[in-house]
Amino acid sequence: MPEICLLGTGGMLPLKDRFLTSLFIEHNGRGILIDCGEGTQVAFAKHGLKLSKIQTLLITHGHADHVTGLPGLLLSLGNCSRTENLDIYFPEKWEYVIKSLLCVCGCLPFPVTMHKLPEICTSWIAENIDPMLEISAMPLQHKVPCMGYKFLFRKKPEFLPEEAKKLNIPVQYWKQLHAGNQIHLPDGREILPEQVTGKSRKSIKITYTTDTLPIPEIIHFAKHSDLFICEGMYGDIEKKSSMNEKGHMLMQDACQLAKNANAKKLWLTHYSPAEKFPEQYQEILKNIFEHVIISQDGEKLSL
Amino acid sequence: MPEICLLGTGGMLPLKDRFLTSLFIEHNGRGILIDCGEGTQVAFAKHGLKLSKIQTLLITHGHADHVTGLPGLLLSLGNCSRTENLDIYFPEKWEYVIKSLLCVCGCLPFPVTMHKLPEICTSWIAENIDPMLEISAMPLQHKVPCMGYKFLFRKKPEFLPEEAKKLNIPVQYWKQLHAGNQIHLPDGREILPEQVTGKSRKSIKITYTTDTLPIPEIIHFAKHSDLFICEGMYGDIEKKSSMNEKGHMLMQDACQLAKNANAKKLWLTHYSPAEKFPEQYQEILKNIFEHVIISQDGEKLSL
Repeated sequence: MPEICLLGTGGMLPLKDRFLTSLFIEHNGRGILIDCGEGTQVAFAKHGLKLSKIQTLLITHGHADHVTGLPGLLLSLGNCSRTENLDIYFPEKWEYVIKSLLCVCGCLPFPVTMHKLPEICTSWIAENIDPMLEISAMPLQHKVPCMGYKFLFRKKPEFLPEEAKKLNIPVQYWKQLHAGNQIHLPDGREILPEQVTGKSRKSIKITYTTDTLPIPEIIHFAKHSDLFICEGMYGDIEKKSSMNEKGHMLMQDACQLAKNANAKKLWLTHYSPAEKFPEQYQEILKNIFEHVIISQDGEKLSL
Repeated sequence: MPEICLLGTGGMLPLKDRFLTSLFIEHNGRGILIDCGEGTQVAFAKHGLKLSKIQTLLITHGHADHVTGLPGLLLSLGNCSRTENLDIYFPEKWEYVIKSLLCVCGCLPFPVTMHKLPEICTSWIAENIDPMLEISAMPLQHKVPCMGYKFLFRKKPEFLPEEAKKLNIPVQYWKQLHAGNQIHLPDGREILPEQVTGKSRKSIKITYTTDTLPIPEIIHFAKHSDLFICEGMYGDIEKKSSMNEKGHMLMQDACQLAKNANAKKLWLTHYSPAEKFPEQYQEILKNIFEHVIISQDGEKLSL
């Protein structure tokens, strides 16, 4: 099951005790990092996570607070003797920024594959990351092209050992059947996965949207998320119009989106550096959406 | 008098409690930052220093651990409503790295002047920084072009108020005379600074060399430094040959350089991330050079 850690909760500028917004999801031993601001590699060490697990990097957009940790992170991966490929996905308009940052790295000891996401990008199945994982992207509404990401971790259907026993299927074939593969037994019988599995189980859904106006499309994108992670630059509603002008939203907007999307849980992140004590808005926010967490750096969850 | 703060002491990779090597010198309200690895802006906040004081940035070379904090730092300066020019000096070969990093910043609200230092660069007087300050650069011997820097803070000669009184010079002219200016009094007399000042006073000298083999030229460059700041990647002498191959030196090498240069004090810095406890070498190092400090992040001194 996915293990999620919000490495940092800062927007724009890091504070001495708040790293820039970045999310790490680990599933089946493989890690996905979303955004990589200055200091992300230090946040990894601080929260007891291993850089070497990163398989895939998703970038929402090329503003400095989301990307300037890239060269340091990639060089550190090189220092961990990495040789396997790293996939980086980003909105196509930001190719020049990603390439500029990578030129600081010089020659890395592992290949990097860059995937440019078109602005109208909606969905892709990241087979190379995990066959049980579907990732979708959605264009957000920031001052510049910016993507939100959605993760669907599919669960295998329940395995029914009693049915397998009834059919006299040797135990060494159970795993293959549970993984959805048809098998051919030595006695000549063909066994279908459906013969030994029960009901399909609901996928786990995580949605991540930051640096955006609270557009209604996010409600559909985040619908029924087990965990919805969303920016909340300010809790002070007097900041609303100036925030919106910059393509951001209030904590209250994020709570309203979570409520309308019927999310199970909301983690707020990407606080303005001027918002020193976001937890002060807890009561107000819980009145809008009960299951809001005013996250701090290192917020963790297993789903 | 200059106030010095070693913002970070890490080489190659930051650790969770060790920022990358970067030095800040403040003099007469103006600040010089030397190197700017990932997290430098956070180290400023951590050590109670103001980013807004930075007037000049000197880069030793373009390796990531010395430059990747640049975009974040510049954007933060922009967020402090800076409008005045920022001067950045770096070895000319690294122009592409500096420009690549700056392209992440987009449009800054203040001008940046880039100064390319030729590889044979030896000395320049940075009048625009401080007329009482002379900065020199020296090519070091790393795997790539890299500069060491030397700072001479000139002191005004002693002012002699008794002499000024004897000559009936009104008090409002004393400051100009002390600053070295000839003045013309209303009664027609010309007064020379030498008439009211005493002996010249010794300049304060700070030398900074990191990412280099312990070449003998450093001894001359750092001669009689009040403070010599030098890399010491490892204290384990078994690492010597592999370190030297990478263009680095041991803590012991730095102590020998400080001793031969007759420096007053040595701060070690730029420790390998594998060197978790550099203070363990204290006794060995003091046997080579008594006035060695195995610096930690935030080491401060007023000279």
